[in-house]
Amino acid sequence: MKFIQKLQKAQLNNNSLLCVGLDVDPARLPQHLRSMSNSVVQFNRRLIEATYDLACAYKLNLSFYEALGERGWQSLQQTLAYVPAGIITIGDGKRGDIGNSSERYAKAIFNGFGFDATTVHPYMGYDSIEPFLRYEDRGTFLLVLTSNEGSSDFQRITFGGKPFYQKVVHAAVRWNTRKNVGLVVGATHPEELQPIRKLAAEMPILIPGIGKQGGDLESAVRYGCNKKGLLAIINASRSILYASSGKDFATAARKEATRLRNKIVRYQEQFFD
Amino acid sequence: MKFIQKLQKAQLNNNSLLCVGLDVDPARLPQHLRSMSNSVVQFNRRLIEATYDLACAYKLNLSFYEALGERGWQSLQQTLAYVPAGIITIGDGKRGDIGNSSERYAKAIFNGFGFDATTVHPYMGYDSIEPFLRYEDRGTFLLVLTSNEGSSDFQRITFGGKPFYQKVVHAAVRWNTRKNVGLVVGATHPEELQPIRKLAAEMPILIPGIGKQGGDLESAVRYGCNKKGLLAIINASRSILYASSGKDFATAARKEATRLRNKIVRYQEQFFD
Repeated sequence: MKFIQKLQKAQLNNNSLLCVGLDVDPARLPQHLRSMSNSVVQFNRRLIEATYDLACAYKLNLSFYEALGERGWQSLQQTLAYVPAGIITIGDGKRGDIGNSSERYAKAIFNGFGFDATTVHPYMGYDSIEPFLRYEDRGTFLLVLTSNEGSSDFQRITFGGKPFYQKVVHAAVRWNTRKNVGLVVGATHPEELQPIRKLAAEMPILIPGIGKQGGDLESAVRYGCNKKGLLAIINASRSILYASSGKDFATAARKEATRLRNKIVRYQEQFFD
Repeated sequence: MKFIQKLQKAQLNNNSLLCVGLDVDPARLPQHLRSMSNSVVQFNRRLIEATYDLACAYKLNLSFYEALGERGWQSLQQTLAYVPAGIITIGDGKRGDIGNSSERYAKAIFNGFGFDATTVHPYMGYDSIEPFLRYEDRGTFLLVLTSNEGSSDFQRITFGGKPFYQKVVHAAVRWNTRKNVGLVVGATHPEELQPIRKLAAEMPILIPGIGKQGGDLESAVRYGCNKKGLLAIINASRSILYASSGKDFATAARKEATRLRNKIVRYQEQFFD
């Protein structure tokens, strides 16, 4: 199945555009889990069990696992085994290298871990991204306008009145011959989402930044979705993961995920037929 | 010791600007090594033993190790243990993420593996790079003008007559308050090296692309060095690693490394006092 079909199916099945970011900081685990040998995986397992019917995707930022060394690599693999088939898994690695090396990153992420999708830096151009695109049934999301402050350092530089990040959108549209390209646009840029969605009418847009980073959920839904009110993937990490630091962390996570999912559904109903 | 001092010392001690890229493809290992359980590490160990007096640095492209899974992670660590103190190690990961995540990448690369230096994508701006710069004694190399064809897709877009990559150079100079920032400029762009070196007079410049990729060694030395004929780090990977596919691979690697080092020295003598 094409990535975009798998994504749509997951969004319809669970009636959800919510992506749960499993970016686990061992220092923030609930006290009672910390002594466990496999604490990160146990935490993730309980979070997945508590939210899998509320989410269309899980996103794992690879940095959080790499920081744990070899152990982290194992945790990643074990965590992925708990995600039910039908839910999208995103290996958020923000890779990008010369073709020879990007081939290997793609292999590690798509074959090794078996992720459904990944994120890549556009800076090195087409031949740094093409090795990912060869995996026709996987999604490759280009960083367009990221949720952090530094996004204005280069992404917003304008020439001929147009910001640099629009060049990336145009390229992504051009490179989408296999229908497996997506975009990353932070929810902290609500005004830019609409024009970007116009340029990329039928591409998935991964939208981080609605929680701790203060992004705008209403705009994320309203302008991030395609005309059917789908294909926006709205990520929340810390607000769900650390909804409670006690033994009730999974229940609290479910409550927060439900709240977000339902809020998204209300916006979908408001802005789409 | 500051990174730039350590680098200069390594370059003077071995009279070498050569960096050996240990980007090992298991499929290209000499036949007699392939059956060994630890073949990648054994290959690297013999290469290091054969070249450590001819190189100022070893660069390990992380993709080659990630593609090998958990085992690759171990190979990385074990390889690094064979690099003599005083020689620079570069973890070429081309990372870059929001601050929270970049912190973790920096931790994995500088603390976990203990690399002296790394490479980062500039696209996400200052706060995506600053967590790396906090490691004052390590070097962080920003991608400026990469050696691949795709470098023209975005890096060369011009505005006000100036190419985008120059914006990155200007930013790198501004962000170099701790004297630990470097640049990556492919040897496949000989004409751009000189103006870049002018803008960044005393920064290390990592220059890949002289081997298989067909870059220009003379320009790499002539325009990549500072006024003292130092601070260019000229990387060769495949031409050294696979100089022979037989049992004599280490001897052949030494021969090729010697040839490159000596050629570089001759250019240094020609163009610098």
